Amino acid sequence: MNGAEPLDIAVIGLGLIGGSALRALAAAGHRVLGYDADPTTRATARTAAARAPQGARWQVTGTVADAVSPADVVLLAVPLPAVEAIFGELATSGYSGLVTDVTSVKQPVRELAAKTLHAAGQSLAGFVGGHPMAGRERSGFGASEAELFDGCAWVLCLEEGTGLDDWLRLAALFTAIGARVVPTTADEHDRAVAAVSHVPHLLAASLAGHAANDPLALTLGAGSFRDGTRVAASRPGLVAAMCGGNAEAARHTLDAVIADLQAARAALDGPDPIAALEPWLTPGYTARSRWPVTPGTPEPMRADPSALRALGRAGGWVTTVDAARRTVVAVRPA
Amino acid sequence: MNGAEPLDIAVIGLGLIGGSALRALAAAGHRVLGYDADPTTRATARTAAARAPQGARWQVTGTVADAVSPADVVLLAVPLPAVEAIFGELATSGYSGLVTDVTSVKQPVRELAAKTLHAAGQSLAGFVGGHPMAGRERSGFGASEAELFDGCAWVLCLEEGTGLDDWLRLAALFTAIGARVVPTTADEHDRAVAAVSHVPHLLAASLAGHAANDPLALTLGAGSFRDGTRVAASRPGLVAAMCGGNAEAARHTLDAVIADLQAARAALDGPDPIAALEPWLTPGYTARSRWPVTPGTPEPMRADPSALRALGRAGGWVTTVDAARRTVVAVRPA
Repeated sequence: MNGAEPLDIAVIGLGLIGGSALRALAAAGHRVLGYDADPTTRATARTAAARAPQGARWQVTGTVADAVSPADVVLLAVPLPAVEAIFGELATSGYSGLVTDVTSVKQPVRELAAKTLHAAGQSLAGFVGGHPMAGRERSGFGASEAELFDGCAWVLCLEEGTGLDDWLRLAALFTAIGARVVPTTADEHDRAVAAVSHVPHLLAASLAGHAANDPLALTLGAGSFRDGTRVAASRPGLVAAMCGGNAEAARHTLDAVIADLQAARAALDGPDPIAALEPWLTPGYTARSRWPVTPGTPEPMRADPSALRALGRAGGWVTTVDAARRTVVAVRPA
Repeated sequence: MNGAEPLDIAVIGLGLIGGSALRALAAAGHRVLGYDADPTTRATARTAAARAPQGARWQVTGTVADAVSPADVVLLAVPLPAVEAIFGELATSGYSGLVTDVTSVKQPVRELAAKTLHAAGQSLAGFVGGHPMAGRERSGFGASEAELFDGCAWVLCLEEGTGLDDWLRLAALFTAIGARVVPTTADEHDRAVAAVSHVPHLLAASLAGHAANDPLALTLGAGSFRDGTRVAASRPGLVAAMCGGNAEAARHTLDAVIADLQAARAALDGPDPIAALEPWLTPGYTARSRWPVTPGTPEPMRADPSALRALGRAGGWVTTVDAARRTVVAVRPA
């Protein structure tokens, strides 16, 4: 229990992320209620609960209202298009506790939360946007596991209006199930994921689409084509929703990448393309050779919002939280 | 021996590709002489020969001239910057047999061959450009193995001026050591590898370089960043030589990719980015979901130069060669 009291937690949406959170939070000793809109998923999650070790079991409810009524914390683990309706159900159910989510864009969810809560006469104060970077090839409750978050980066947004104690309470929950909690803002998160996920999907699609017109190229394609286009095999509807749902940040990164490729084009056009390309290639080489980030030495830190945001901006994260003393253990890249 | 007579073959350059060809051709029963400019590599290759099975051994010579003087076929497996000097040595040694190479761009090598041979009063007729698509993480003779070419695509250029019998003789050699021989021209090869290898390297470098300015992004990077930037960790000097050595074709592909990304940019800028992106993403999705190419049924085919070039253009390859009867067994994508 990491020294903290057991909480009542509602997990809404029992796919890969929700199902894994249900398992991990129950195993950490919390009282967890789960709900999913799909009756088959609810039945599967109930059967799985009965097989879980004593003391690590969860319950599955038939409605959102039943799951959230006793809750201290609600974890929304539904896809982006379903988020607005669930915010509406939370508002009409009279729930007024802490809410967090796991969707892959944060500014649009923050706007939805503000709109729905405002309509219900409530404020954004109790909403803390989140995003565990824990994708897998497989999805659904069947792929969920309590260990999914071990060592994974879990973004928790710490905006100007976010209550520090709310943020620390959630950070304590998620570090206790193994996550590296990354403090940042919706805006900075959305730019970062545009750079490392959304725009890479666009480049992969473009490369694969270009080769599609050249059967010889598809036959000659080897490792660099395989890896550079791997995510182009993701369903276009999902990728469009992900990139289009983060349009502003994706445009920003795409503009930078297009400008950069135009510089490479100019280098290829010059009198000595080889000499001109080498310095153009070097920053990416340096960055990629040092990736993934090597963790530095863990250090205790007072939990101050701007210091935490600076930690996230520097590529750092939180591994342990003492919510009562408002201190954390922070790790920065070595 | 695939029905053919044993040949005298010189392999110049004993790195991953040359060393593997040395092993594979010796194991196929040919008399193989190897040479490398580095004395340590020569010593290693000699020691390895002594450990090879009886009847599958090669010899290592101290000069290029000693390796090529008895040869029917010379296989140049040196890096692009070393090719010109070796062509010069071949011309001055008086060698007038068949020459092929394994470098990753074909038009520049063809031009070097023409220049050097012309200066020596010889013609391009005996030069057939080649490129086995058999890269590995490791390089050097230490990484070489006789099985490297099993199932690998080996481009062999069949230009207007290439002698069909020369081409068939080499195609017989390489199919016999397991390669799928792809008939094409230097020009078509260079465009195809720009699309599946050179431009993917440029995109990976740009993505990694963009993320380099954002430590938060590097911490949040997961699978799509890992794969989309993997080749950015290749040495900038090598990548610059590869892309800059194929500048015309790389420009052509890069222009197409930039135009395509500008269309994605316009989609992100419109009133409904999600709806606009989905059809933009679909051609790449379709191509990548069907990749790698599924082989169709092998079919016998008369070895006619334009039919062979059409086979390569359609993504097909040759698996067996009967040089005497001028027939091949061809496979097209299913």
